[in-house]
Amino acid sequence: MSQVRVHNFSISLDGFGTGEGIALDAPFGHAGERLHEWMFATRFWRSMVGQPGGSAGVDDAFAERHEPGIGAEIMGRGKFSASTGPWEQVGTEEEWRGWWGPNPPFHTPVFVLTHHTRPPIEMEGGTVFHFVDASPQDALALAREAAGDRDVRVGGGATIVRDFLAAGLIDTAHIVQVPLLLGRGVRLWDGLETLDEHYAIEAVSSPSGVTHLTLTRRATDDS
Amino acid sequence: MSQVRVHNFSISLDGFGTGEGIALDAPFGHAGERLHEWMFATRFWRSMVGQPGGSAGVDDAFAERHEPGIGAEIMGRGKFSASTGPWEQVGTEEEWRGWWGPNPPFHTPVFVLTHHTRPPIEMEGGTVFHFVDASPQDALALAREAAGDRDVRVGGGATIVRDFLAAGLIDTAHIVQVPLLLGRGVRLWDGLETLDEHYAIEAVSSPSGVTHLTLTRRATDDS
Repeated sequence: MSQVRVHNFSISLDGFGTGEGIALDAPFGHAGERLHEWMFATRFWRSMVGQPGGSAGVDDAFAERHEPGIGAEIMGRGKFSASTGPWEQVGTEEEWRGWWGPNPPFHTPVFVLTHHTRPPIEMEGGTVFHFVDASPQDALALAREAAGDRDVRVGGGATIVRDFLAAGLIDTAHIVQVPLLLGRGVRLWDGLETLDEHYAIEAVSSPSGVTHLTLTRRATDDS
Repeated sequence: MSQVRVHNFSISLDGFGTGEGIALDAPFGHAGERLHEWMFATRFWRSMVGQPGGSAGVDDAFAERHEPGIGAEIMGRGKFSASTGPWEQVGTEEEWRGWWGPNPPFHTPVFVLTHHTRPPIEMEGGTVFHFVDASPQDALALAREAAGDRDVRVGGGATIVRDFLAAGLIDTAHIVQVPLLLGRGVRLWDGLETLDEHYAIEAVSSPSGVTHLTLTRRATDDS
């Protein structure tokens, strides 16, 4: 069966996956880009944005696993858009089509969880945004069907990763703890008491300063 | 000037320094001993409790720094006792004298922060518990005077470490992140936004599974 994976999901030392004050010019709120600087320095990232160089060590080894074998992504409305509530601009020239430009880096179907459904948006490069109002289980069933024998990535934000972890739907999660304190925003770990009973948790610190946490669902839960 | 140090302060992945339900038979509430098992396995700990063996690696290297050069400790009421409010048993045979038996492992003056002052308690081995109702700054002044040219340890719990960090009174803090999720209890990191601007934060993961975080006050704050 295909796997359900989380990759490169960055949190602060105090557990926030995003800051406060999300806006068009601040996709991570007051966190700015600080949660992701570790990734920008990797060869994986620099190659993706067409730049030479970049680190090839443990940060890169983890980061590049984001891509291979993925056939669909599930994300929250908050990862797709700074807006909430009904979509005002559907069908207009100002229609919001995500943060990623005309050719988003997904290249697969992407299922955006929202209570406000709308027609799908087909982008260049194979990315198609589908807007679904569904439980984690039902969203995963849709994504699995779209992914075929490939895996499903749960892309965030914090609320979505938390909900899928709480529901036991994630097989492996790569969480990157960045040594800064945000103080406010959306917490990843809330309400996940005893998660370690269901997941083995490995920590490996990087010379860059971040700590890579890998959560692997315990075999006894596979029954 | 003598340093103000935190050692071996364990937290869960979700940032709790202690669980819920603190009681006489549960000093860390529902966390039980799980936050401290990494330490029980070290040579430092086993030697202290009169047992042979124990690991001598990175966990031990950090753990043993708890002792040398310390001339006084500051702790919260919650580290000294499971009770809150007025002391009911002062002067009786049932008088609470801490969790540590007749010869506590401090061997220095210990300043217990409480709104309910009481006479000091002199224990075997050099530990004297003083009960003071004071601000972090004033408590530190008392502890520094008692410590002479030696350092002051801030011993916890989470509220005390947090308050002293927020006040900028800590020079170095060793925080041990244990890969388990408590879900509830007392959080260490709350209200410490921008702490990383004042402290360099190093993370090193141990084969035991824990991650040692070392906070070192940045030199620019020494002015």
